[in-house]
Parts: sequence; C-alpha cells; structure tokens
Amino acid sequence: MTQTTPAEICLARWARSIRTSPLQTMLTKCRPAISFALGLPGPELLPAEQLSVAAAAVLASGPGALQYGPPSEELRHQIVEIMRWRGVECKASEVFLTSGAQQGLSILAKLLIGPRGRVVCEKYVYTGFLQAIEPMMPEVHTIETDAWSGPDIDGLEALLTRVADPGFLYINATGHNPLSLTLGGEARIRLVKLSARALTIVEDDPYGLLQYEGDSAALKSASPSSIIYVGSFSKILSPALRVGWLVAPEHLHTALASIKEGSDINTGTFSQRVACRFIASGGLREHVSKLACAYRRRRDFMLDALARTLPSGSRWTTPSAGIFIWVELPEPYDAVELLDRALSEHGVAFLPGVAFCAKDSAHESARRSLRLNFSHCTEDQIEEGMRRIAVILRDW
Amino acid sequence: MTQTTPAEICLARWARSIRTSPLQTMLTKCRPAISFALGLPGPELLPAEQLSVAAAAVLASGPGALQYGPPSEELRHQIVEIMRWRGVECKASEVFLTSGAQQGLSILAKLLIGPRGRVVCEKYVYTGFLQAIEPMMPEVHTIETDAWSGPDIDGLEALLTRVADPGFLYINATGHNPLSLTLGGEARIRLVKLSARALTIVEDDPYGLLQYEGDSAALKSASPSSIIYVGSFSKILSPALRVGWLVAPEHLHTALASIKEGSDINTGTFSQRVACRFIASGGLREHVSKLACAYRRRRDFMLDALARTLPSGSRWTTPSAGIFIWVELPEPYDAVELLDRALSEHGVAFLPGVAFCAKDSAHESARRSLRLNFSHCTEDQIEEGMRRIAVILRDW
Repeated sequence: MTQTTPAEICLARWARSIRTSPLQTMLTKCRPAISFALGLPGPELLPAEQLSVAAAAVLASGPGALQYGPPSEELRHQIVEIMRWRGVECKASEVFLTSGAQQGLSILAKLLIGPRGRVVCEKYVYTGFLQAIEPMMPEVHTIETDAWSGPDIDGLEALLTRVADPGFLYINATGHNPLSLTLGGEARIRLVKLSARALTIVEDDPYGLLQYEGDSAALKSASPSSIIYVGSFSKILSPALRVGWLVAPEHLHTALASIKEGSDINTGTFSQRVACRFIASGGLREHVSKLACAYRRRRDFMLDALARTLPSGSRWTTPSAGIFIWVELPEPYDAVELLDRALSEHGVAFLPGVAFCAKDSAHESARRSLRLNFSHCTEDQIEEGMRRIAVILRDW
Repeated sequence: MTQTTPAEICLARWARSIRTSPLQTMLTKCRPAISFALGLPGPELLPAEQLSVAAAAVLASGPGALQYGPPSEELRHQIVEIMRWRGVECKASEVFLTSGAQQGLSILAKLLIGPRGRVVCEKYVYTGFLQAIEPMMPEVHTIETDAWSGPDIDGLEALLTRVADPGFLYINATGHNPLSLTLGGEARIRLVKLSARALTIVEDDPYGLLQYEGDSAALKSASPSSIIYVGSFSKILSPALRVGWLVAPEHLHTALASIKEGSDINTGTFSQRVACRFIASGGLREHVSKLACAYRRRRDFMLDALARTLPSGSRWTTPSAGIFIWVELPEPYDAVELLDRALSEHGVAFLPGVAFCAKDSAHESARRSLRLNFSHCTEDQIEEGMRRIAVILRDW
C-alpha cells in the first residue's frame, strides 16, 4: 500500500503560521532554575490536602461524579457568592461553567466574533486571548495602552467611530496581564458608559481576588448586561483543575452551552465537583486571604530587589493587584537579549514585553520591557534571581 | 447610568441560529425514568473505588498535580500501549492529549478546516461533530450512508472529484454513532487507499475497545500518517474525567498544542494524572473486558426485546461494537411522534434518526428511525422500557 507523506495533510490557512507560544515554550521546554516567566501560583501554597479530602468525598458520593451530567448547580450558586466579593450581584442562572477562563475566552470568540469578525483589544494583551481568537481569523483592532496610564479611552472612542460592530472589547480591569495595572475610577466610568451604548465588553478577571491595596470591584459590577465577566479558579485554587466561569445574560446560555458542547462536551466534570466540595467546606475565602497575604510579601520583596538592582532610568509598576510587575529599562538595554543571557547563562527566566504585543502593533518601548511574575517564587528565589539579572545588567 | 438591554450584545452571524442540541436536552432537561437516549456508560460499571485510590495517590504525590505543567508524558506512553490493542503502532510523540474526544474534534476543525473551509461526512453523523465544526461556518459535503451497507464510497470518490481540498473526511469505522455499523474489510481498504492519495481522514473511535464479535482494528492501523485518530477514555473509564487523545503526525503537534492552549490551556491536568495512575495500576484492560462483557449481555437482551416488540416490517442492526442499535420502523410509524409519546406518557427516552442528519440531508427513512443505547440501562430497565414502547406501537 502506498504510504502518504506527512506533508499531505493540508492545514487550514490560518494554521500554517502557528508557532509555539512563548508561554508554552517556558512551560514545556525551558527548565530555568528560577522562573519569573509564567503566571503560576506558588506551589507550596496550593491546598493539596484539602483538595484531597474533597476529591475523596466526591468519589465516595457515588458514580454520578464520574458520569455525564449537567454542569454543577451547586458550584454555580457558590460562584454567585464569589461574584459578590467582586462587587457583582448576579443570579446562578447567569453563571456558566467553563474548563478554565481560557475556555471562556475561546467560547466567547466563537459566540461574539465568528469567522473573520472584528474585535478590539489593547496593544499589550494576554497572549492566550490572541490564541483564543486566531482560529476565527478576526480583524484585530488595537488601542494604545501603557502600564502607567492604562488604555487610551479617547483612542477607543475614535476607533469605535471607524470600526463597525466589533464583537467585543477585551480588557483586564484589575491586575492587568501583562501590564499589571488596575484601572482607575475615571477609565472605569468611561468604559462602562461605552458598554452601555454600543460596545460589548469581555472583562477577564483572573486576578480580581488577589488585591494588595484597596479593593477594586469588577467592571461588571457597574453594568450588569453588556459586560460579560470571565472568572477562574486557576489563580485562587488550582490551575490543574481547569474550572472557570462566565457571568453572562441568561439569554446567551443556550448558545454558550451548545458551543461548549462542541468544544469539549457541556458536562459536569469531576473537577467541578472537587472545586465545589472544597468551597462548600468554607475554606476558599480563607485560602484567598492567605494567598493575597503571601503574594503581597513576595511583591514587596521583588519591588525592593528591583530598586536595588535596576539601572538608573528604569521604571516599574507597583501593582495593587495581580501577580506581575511590569518593568521598562532605559536605552540601550534590550529585554529579549537580556532574557537570552539570563536563561542560557544564569538559569533565570522572565518574559519580554514583545511577547505580549498584539499583531501589527509593536511599541517602541516593548523591546525594553519585561513582565516579572512574583507569585511563583519564594523570597529566596526572588532574591537570587534578581541578583543574577543584576549581574547581566551591570556588565551590559 | 443607562442600563443596556440584553439584546444589545450582538452575536456572530453563525451563532444566531444556535439551538439546544437534542443530546443536551436529554442530559439537562428530560429526566425520563428509563433512557435509551444518550451514550452513557452504565453507572454501576464505573470504577469509582479504583479512581478514588488513584486520585488520593495523585494528590499525595505533591503540589505538581495541581499546578500548570506539561501534558502527562506517562499517560502518552500508556496510550501507545492502548493503541496497540487497536492494532496501531505509534510513538508517544504522536499522542496528543485532549480534554476528551470532543475537544480533539474541535481542535481538528480549527487546524484542518478553518473559517469557511470544506469538510466531508456521512449523512447520518454524530451531532457533536457538527457542533465542533459549526463555529467555522464550513461547507459541509455529505455522502450517502445507511446502517446496513455503510458509507457510499463510490459517492465519496465522485464527490472528491467535485469538491476541492476538503479539510478531512470524518468517520467512525467501528461501532458507528448513530448507525451502529462496523465497516467491513472492503470499505476499509478503499478508504485507506483514498487517504493515501489525497484525503485526510479523521477517525473518531470512542467505541473501538467495546467490541462483541470479532476484533476490528482501527482504520488508522493501515495508514499511519494520513489518518488522524481520535481516542477517548469517556466510554471505557469515565466521561467526567474529560480525558482523550489524538494520534497525529509529530509535525502537527506544535499547531495542536497552540490550538489547545487557545482553547483551554495546554496543561497537564489533575484528570490526566488520575487516569494515568489508574492505568498504571494495571486495571484498564480488565475493566474494558468487564465492560464489553456487560454491554454484550445488554445488547443481546435488547435485541431479544426488539424481536418480541417491534411491528412486522421493522429492521434493526446487530452491532458487533459500540453501544447503540439502529432501528428502522415500517410505514406509517414516526419516530419523532413515538418519542413524544414515549417521553410524556411512559417516561422512556431514545433519540430519533432525524437528530443525526447532517444539515441539508434528510433521508426519507430518518423519521422512521431510532437510535437505542444499550449500555446505560440494566437488563430490567431494558425489559421495562421496551415493554412501554411496545404499548405505544401496538396502539399506533
């Protein structure tokens, strides 16, 4: 029988230019001694023991936990309470369970953009958002942004007069990834006003419960129906459970359920039940407080180290939420080159700003920018990692 | 502040016609006393106790099970062995882990079809396949098929001369859903020859290990590179774990990983580790044998009941694999009407043939056809359910 060659499998046009994402490279290929690269929880802070108890209870409750079944009603009710912590009043019937926030974005891309539709995001954006929308081959319209002033709302308003019917604006209002900014009141008011007029907003809020100063409510709290909220247990419970949620108007849920069914079956999973049991035990609020406390210490520790380490003319953010610090080095430093040397010579990883540029939109400062994660490493590792980066910068 | 109305969220064009799938309706809305409607494992056959032991061991092994991390290498190696049971020799590097077979289909739709691409399937097809491809708004080309002679390969060859570059042909070669047919040798040889020439084939094989007579190898066994295999633990271990796999040429894995990352993050999940631990304990082969034995008995029990129950002029399949029997009633019976009465008056469910018709392709016989599942109910339930259906048919 004639054997085919692999080349004969013909890929869809958009898929021919797929490259490994910087995040996957860091997760699967690089094994740096010290990593500030990814948005990983601190491993020693994961509640393994309580989740073990929860898993045992779920499996002891009968075969229903292993069978196809509707998404967990109880978990949807628990999320109504979690949304209250974010300042959002919603009903369980508005909560749609997903396999993590990333699936929420992927489903919304299908629901609201569709093939070759339009979408708006900031020039610096979570790379997973771009990966969620790319299979639709959308027109991506970007607005200016930076880590200190946030998204250019004037620019957004101007863009909306030019670009007809964008599917939605994608935004992190609290603990931005990668810029680490939490939006101020004025920007929030203007965004909410825009959403009330013509613009659907998708608010991706994985870090909303990890706040260190103040307590910014979700953007969704001000405008119930035209802002779709994307929530996640990955940063506050466990990434490997793959449980997240959307808060979206009830009339969208038939379509959401059908799209999820087409994506990975819209069934109540084992993980949903384990998360639900853990939350039912009452431990989530306490766990989130413990995380926020630990991460605040790590943030402060890294800020101290940055002040001692970075060359004059550098600037960096002091994030009030989230798990990243955004750093801009002065000329002539280059973050991509810095990463190469940090990885190969010192076993230290971070991600350069250019990794987060939406297509067709490279900022001049991107090559001098770094995203540093502070949740994953211990204080000793932060100290040592920053010391190694300082060595490279000193000898530049 | 002005409140928006829900109507202001504008859906992508394809999404405006989404309706709840018949499978979701059965899973979430109907609670019939006896259901032959869905492809559910028998609940009492799920290995809850062994999975409980596995979950405890996974969680006791440290926080890695709850953290982001690469897909499970060990599980990929275990799947190489499982593929041997299906007659397929492959490498672990060709195994790509998914959140169930459905996600495998959704990823392949993005990879191989793309926005407004082309695809080929049979006129009767698994509805989840259509849901996986719909967000791409593809041109769906169908070939004739029936439960006794299988897909019309002559028609497929003719279609391939008319339709340029279809992304792939979707097929169940073993234990077809919904038609219950297992393809004979000649059809397999012709399909493999076609795949060696110009046609990528996606072989969805969730029932390949549930065979009752004979031992049909996967189509993939005959042609390593141009057939992509879709596998699942949902029918042989637990649907709620959401673990499945693809076997695809290595050069596609960068793109597969990126698409999965965009869909729900390409990370090793808790469920993967639990499945892996269960398999490592050596229990899978024995469990599959136990299932096949139990399902064979249920199949035979249902076949007996059909012979006693159905009106003269009916015909039905004797499936050698899978978990469904396909029934065709004579004129003037109507399966949709039968379902209405069975559900509302007798608490019995099944799915009518029309639920599985690919768009634009209704067979004349579809309205007289039923798909009956025999894996989910006990023998007593099968007896009672068929008795109730017989009552309706007798009084037609």
